[in-house]
Amino acid sequence: MLTLKQLQSEMLPEINQALLHFVDSIFPDRQSELNQIFLYHLGLDDKSNDQGKRIRPLLVSICAKGAGCDWRKALPAAVALEILHNFSLIHDDIEDNGQIRRGQPAVWMRWGLAEGLNAGDAMFAAGFEALSALRISFSSEIVLDAVRLFSATSLRLTEGQHMDIGFEKQQKIGIEEYYRMIGGKTAALLAACCQMGALLAGRGTDTQQTYHLFGHNLGMAFQVYDDWLGIWGNQQETGKSTSGDLVEGKKTLPMLIGLLQSERFAERLTHGAIQPDETEQLAHWLHEDGVEASVKNSFQKWSDETQHALSGLDCEAESKSALAELVQILIERNK
Amino acid sequence: MLTLKQLQSEMLPEINQALLHFVDSIFPDRQSELNQIFLYHLGLDDKSNDQGKRIRPLLVSICAKGAGCDWRKALPAAVALEILHNFSLIHDDIEDNGQIRRGQPAVWMRWGLAEGLNAGDAMFAAGFEALSALRISFSSEIVLDAVRLFSATSLRLTEGQHMDIGFEKQQKIGIEEYYRMIGGKTAALLAACCQMGALLAGRGTDTQQTYHLFGHNLGMAFQVYDDWLGIWGNQQETGKSTSGDLVEGKKTLPMLIGLLQSERFAERLTHGAIQPDETEQLAHWLHEDGVEASVKNSFQKWSDETQHALSGLDCEAESKSALAELVQILIERNK
Repeated sequence: MLTLKQLQSEMLPEINQALLHFVDSIFPDRQSELNQIFLYHLGLDDKSNDQGKRIRPLLVSICAKGAGCDWRKALPAAVALEILHNFSLIHDDIEDNGQIRRGQPAVWMRWGLAEGLNAGDAMFAAGFEALSALRISFSSEIVLDAVRLFSATSLRLTEGQHMDIGFEKQQKIGIEEYYRMIGGKTAALLAACCQMGALLAGRGTDTQQTYHLFGHNLGMAFQVYDDWLGIWGNQQETGKSTSGDLVEGKKTLPMLIGLLQSERFAERLTHGAIQPDETEQLAHWLHEDGVEASVKNSFQKWSDETQHALSGLDCEAESKSALAELVQILIERNK
Repeated sequence: MLTLKQLQSEMLPEINQALLHFVDSIFPDRQSELNQIFLYHLGLDDKSNDQGKRIRPLLVSICAKGAGCDWRKALPAAVALEILHNFSLIHDDIEDNGQIRRGQPAVWMRWGLAEGLNAGDAMFAAGFEALSALRISFSSEIVLDAVRLFSATSLRLTEGQHMDIGFEKQQKIGIEEYYRMIGGKTAALLAACCQMGALLAGRGTDTQQTYHLFGHNLGMAFQVYDDWLGIWGNQQETGKSTSGDLVEGKKTLPMLIGLLQSERFAERLTHGAIQPDETEQLAHWLHEDGVEASVKNSFQKWSDETQHALSGLDCEAESKSALAELVQILIERNK
C-alpha cells in the first residue's frame, strides 16, 4: 500500500487546505453561521475528527495526475466535487430523516430544517463557485467542459435520489431499476471525479469515457458492497448496525432480491416493520434462500468490471497502482 | 404601454417555448415524475393558468436587446435565471411552511417533503445545465463569465435566505441589516438578470455594473413595496390578505420599523402572535406612529435610485422605454 499512502500523505493535506481556503473565501467571516455550518459538515472545524474519507477529491487528484496533469492545478475541481458530495449528504439526511452524520448531529438536526436545507443549497452553489478558480490554469474550453460535467452530474444525482425516494412506495423493484438508481445516486459522482481528472489533463472524449467508466463501475461495486455490509457486515469493523438497513426498511439490493426470491422473507414483510430482534433470523433466511449469493454475484460482476476498466486505463503507472489500491480499500473493506 | 406590450408579446411565447423545450431535453419522458413536477411548478402543464409574471427572463431579454445583443441568442440565460428563481421558490415554500404557490398546492405539499426538496435540487442543477446552451452563440470567455455570475448570484440568494430565516429568532433588526437581507433574497436575482443582458451583449464590466445596479435598485424598491402592500395594500387588487404578514409575524420592513419606532406596537408583540381581528387596529397604529411614512420614505428612496440608474443606462431607446414601463408595473402595482 506504499504508493497510495504516499500519494494520500501528499494530497490530502493540500485538499483540506484548499477546502478551508475556499470556504473562507466565500464566507470571509469565521464567525458567520454559514462558514461555521460548512466547516462543521466538512469536518474542518476544531472539534471534528471525522472528515469522511475524501475519496472523491482523491480520485480527481490521482486521475488528473495519472492522465498527465499537474494535480495541484486540478485542486479547484477536487474541492468542487467534494463539496457537491457533501451538499448531497446534507439534503439526503433531511430526506431520509438521518439524524447522525459521521458521529455528530446532522446539519439539519443541529441548525433546524429550514437552515439546514438552505445551507445545503449554499453548498451546492459553492460547488459551482469553486470551479471558477480553474480559469487560472486551464483554457476556457476545458473549464466549460468541466462545468458541464459538473452540472450534468448534479442532475444525475438528483435523478438517482428521486428514484430512491420513489422506491419506498414501490412493492417490486427489478435489478435493472436498482442499478439505474445507484448509477445516479452513487456511481455518477465517482464517474465524474475520474472523468474530471482526464478532462483537465486535456484528454479527448474517448479517453475521458474510459476514466468515466472506471469510476462508474467502482461506484456500482462500492454501493452493492455497502448494501451487502448493511445486512451481513461485521458491526464492530464497519461501525454500522448490521440490522439497520432491514429495520429501516431500506430498499437495498438484498431487500429487493429478497422480495423477488425468498417467499418467507417477502411474506414476513407484508406484516409490518422488521424489529431489531428479528434481523439475525431474517439475514439467515436471506442467506439460505440464495439472496446473499445473488448479491455477491452482483458484487463480483461490478468488481470484475472495475478491474477490467482499470487495467485498460491509459494512466501513468504509479497513479494506476494507487487507483488499484484504492479499489481494494473501497470494495473490500471488510471481507 | 405600447413598447412593453409589444416586446412582451414577442418575447414571452419564445421564453415559454424555450423553457418547455429545455425541460423536455433534460427529462425526455413526459410521464416521468421530475418532468411533471417541473412543468407543474413552472406553470407549463395543461392545467396551469398562473405561470408567474416571467419578470426575470423578460429582464434578461430586454436588457440583452437594449445592450445590443440578439435577445433570442440570450434565451438559454433567460431560461436559466427563471429556473433559478423557481428553484428558490420550491425550497422557500418548504422553509417557510408555504402551502400554496400561485393558487395551487406547493410542490412539497403535493409530492411530499423529500421529493419536493430533491426536485428543488434538480431544478437548481438544471439552471446550470441550461446555461451550457449559450456555447452555441457566445465565446467561451463570455459563457464562463455568465456561469460565474450565475453561481455567485445563487450563493447570494442562499445568504439572503439564511439571514431571513435568522430574523425569525432576532428581536431587533436594523434597517441596514434588512437591506442586506433583501439585497440577497430579492435584489441579487434581478440585478443578475439585468447584468446578464449586458454581459451577453459583450459590454465591459463598467457597463455591466450599471445594469447590475439598475436591477439591484429595482429589486430593493420592489421588495419594500411588497412589504408595504402586505400591511396597507388593497386586498382585492393584490390578491393577498393584507393582514397575512402581521399574523404570520414576518419580519418585513413595517414590522421591524414598528418594533423600533412604535412603542405600543412593540409592546403588543411581547404578548404573543397577532390575531386576524387585530390587524386593522395595528395597521392604524403603525400609520399613526409614523411607521408607514418611514416605509414610504424607504420605498421612495429606492424608487428614485431605480429611476436614476435607468436614466443613466447605455441602452437602446425602445428597450429603455420598455424597462421604464416594467418599473412602473413592478413598483407601482397598486398605488
